[in-house]
Amino acid sequence: MAQAYFAQEMFQPATFSLTVRSYPPNRGYLVSAGLDDVLDYLSHLQFDSDAIQFLSSTGMFKDDFLEYLGGVRFTGSLRAIPEGRLFFADEPLLEITAPIIEAQLVETYVINQMNLQTALATKASRCVWAAQGRGIADFASRRTHGSDAAMKMARASYMAGFGSTSNVLAASHYGIPPAGTMAHSFISSFPSELDAFRAYSQSFPDRTILLLDTYDTLAGAWNAVEIAKELEVAGHRLAGVRLDSGDYTKLSLQVRHVLDDHDLGYVRILASGGLDEYELETLVEAGAPIDLFGVGTKAGVSADAPWSDMVYKVAWFDDRPVMKLSEGKMSLPGAKQIFRRTNGEGTLAGDIIGLQEETGPVDSKPLLEEFMTRGERNIPTPPLVELRDRFRDEFANLETRFKDLRRPPQFSRLGQP
Amino acid sequence: MAQAYFAQEMFQPATFSLTVRSYPPNRGYLVSAGLDDVLDYLSHLQFDSDAIQFLSSTGMFKDDFLEYLGGVRFTGSLRAIPEGRLFFADEPLLEITAPIIEAQLVETYVINQMNLQTALATKASRCVWAAQGRGIADFASRRTHGSDAAMKMARASYMAGFGSTSNVLAASHYGIPPAGTMAHSFISSFPSELDAFRAYSQSFPDRTILLLDTYDTLAGAWNAVEIAKELEVAGHRLAGVRLDSGDYTKLSLQVRHVLDDHDLGYVRILASGGLDEYELETLVEAGAPIDLFGVGTKAGVSADAPWSDMVYKVAWFDDRPVMKLSEGKMSLPGAKQIFRRTNGEGTLAGDIIGLQEETGPVDSKPLLEEFMTRGERNIPTPPLVELRDRFRDEFANLETRFKDLRRPPQFSRLGQP
Repeated sequence: MAQAYFAQEMFQPATFSLTVRSYPPNRGYLVSAGLDDVLDYLSHLQFDSDAIQFLSSTGMFKDDFLEYLGGVRFTGSLRAIPEGRLFFADEPLLEITAPIIEAQLVETYVINQMNLQTALATKASRCVWAAQGRGIADFASRRTHGSDAAMKMARASYMAGFGSTSNVLAASHYGIPPAGTMAHSFISSFPSELDAFRAYSQSFPDRTILLLDTYDTLAGAWNAVEIAKELEVAGHRLAGVRLDSGDYTKLSLQVRHVLDDHDLGYVRILASGGLDEYELETLVEAGAPIDLFGVGTKAGVSADAPWSDMVYKVAWFDDRPVMKLSEGKMSLPGAKQIFRRTNGEGTLAGDIIGLQEETGPVDSKPLLEEFMTRGERNIPTPPLVELRDRFRDEFANLETRFKDLRRPPQFSRLGQP
Repeated sequence: MAQAYFAQEMFQPATFSLTVRSYPPNRGYLVSAGLDDVLDYLSHLQFDSDAIQFLSSTGMFKDDFLEYLGGVRFTGSLRAIPEGRLFFADEPLLEITAPIIEAQLVETYVINQMNLQTALATKASRCVWAAQGRGIADFASRRTHGSDAAMKMARASYMAGFGSTSNVLAASHYGIPPAGTMAHSFISSFPSELDAFRAYSQSFPDRTILLLDTYDTLAGAWNAVEIAKELEVAGHRLAGVRLDSGDYTKLSLQVRHVLDDHDLGYVRILASGGLDEYELETLVEAGAPIDLFGVGTKAGVSADAPWSDMVYKVAWFDDRPVMKLSEGKMSLPGAKQIFRRTNGEGTLAGDIIGLQEETGPVDSKPLLEEFMTRGERNIPTPPLVELRDRFRDEFANLETRFKDLRRPPQFSRLGQP
């Protein structure tokens, strides 16, 4: 496409709009994430000589076009909803205005990152809601779709309210509290479970979480009591125990009982293994005495909604509005703005989609901000913990019915829902 | 765990086994992929000074352990089923034998890559089977879970039989034929569809595929005819047209009719948009005259099975077999081998799982090969196209019933199924 635009000398600016056309299953809201990576990508967009050489080797491209491509940088502007905010289906999440070749070249990366990170942040926020105040650790790295997704899952889930990650590189890179525990293999490689528990607690006397189910969960709980008492003698405290298989409600009640019978009320119970928001909701409603959840695979791949219908469509080109009419895929023309209304108590009351140059109602605030102008970033990304706080506050202002995990109503884009 | 092992001076070798414990939905076989990346990772395993410094800053680790960690390299061996081969649930796909700290440290990356690439190769092979000889291009990059997954999808799907990828970086990196076409935005940015078609065909006179559905698919087909005739006058041929929405069977029949009526039997029809193996099977069975499928999102996230139950379990430690007994998660002890039997015509007849040191039946061949010894790779990865050929040949030797997309029987691990 770029070569054809170049041959036609089409360098006029175009505006592209990024939108999720319809909700993935069971979703009634979405959480914005991925913008920081997109801004970083746009700031460094460049075809190096290896890339140009490869393109040349395909025989598909003319020399004058390849010479042009070697000099391409992103010179446009980007407006977007900041990270860690709620948004809704059909709303323009991000808009890029740039010479059409530049705006088109970045499409794949923009969708790839925004789609992934938004899906993961949304999924994680559902888990946080289901956990009703109990902590969650990100245990997803081993089963995310590749290493990039593992990093983005740690960041997106922390932004959405998880408390820690087992991904040590992500902890280091993003400043997330690292979380660790032992694997079954650790237990198996000692002569006995008790020996394994003791060795671990000696290395981490104040942060040991003992895995109970390698052989038998209740027998494991009794061994944990013995270790907890040894730690107490040495002036330390066992941090927790972990359930990783079986009936979590029944086992957590039994294990809590064993711990409490030995004055170990301070030892927390962590559950992990196959958990997602649906399972968390069930456990919380059943009153399972679980203090902390380790959430992995199903959240890390957004298992019930591994993709969304996020698209990047041209809305304005060469001073005229543009739209697409394909069956079921119509797009709205023009550069847009979202005006968000809240009621007196701060509760979200509805969004209005207008044109960029319009002024919204007096009781509304525009959501899209200009993060990049003429290729330069002009708003620094806040620390991750600030995005996390922002999301927590905004999510608290979304009515509970929109947080339903199965049949949420559609949030209105036109006024009071 | 590593710090506890270190403190206990546990440096004995352990063998870990990688296994998919149960089939993801609708699967009756799996395709091995990811080994090359794992070998590359093991060859370069090292904690650099930044990593050590971060770990030190957490306050969780002792200086003597961190000093040890700074010198860790992977010194073990790796045995695995080569890439591009069929394997089945519960079979040891890969085994690592190394000092237990090394074997444990690599767990997350090993599972992450093998799980992803195996899932994508398996999904892609299902699409290839459903397409029954029609070509498939990988269009998934925009919606895979991140950039790593986009690259791995291009490679895994090509290995499983796709013909090309729209991911130009992957095409360059792995030597896969690149595939490109135009987007709706390209059409929209010209005064008319015909102008857009003409501009594109002038830039790529011998490889133009025209997108028909921006406004109306049949009107698009008539415009394509006009362009095809212009190209013929100039001594070129229109390569194809693309359907991207609507009823593909009906539209492909109508478009084929329009093309054939104008002696354009050579113009191929490509369909894309929401396609997966189930949709491909329906279109092929309906006799839709589609020559080439562009398969994206649903294959790129393995939408009907975005995760598998792949685990990495210790099977041998310090000269003794080890197993796990957790409810529903039992593992087999000892370093293992898979012996594959074929019948006279080469058809796969069954696999037998034995111990590494056993000799299989005379009519069987061992599947696991030693790819790394004492930390050194000893089998070079063959060119991707060879892996592709190997898979095609092996897949041809799998009985058709195991390829059923919905209710395949379980392949026997003990003998004739």
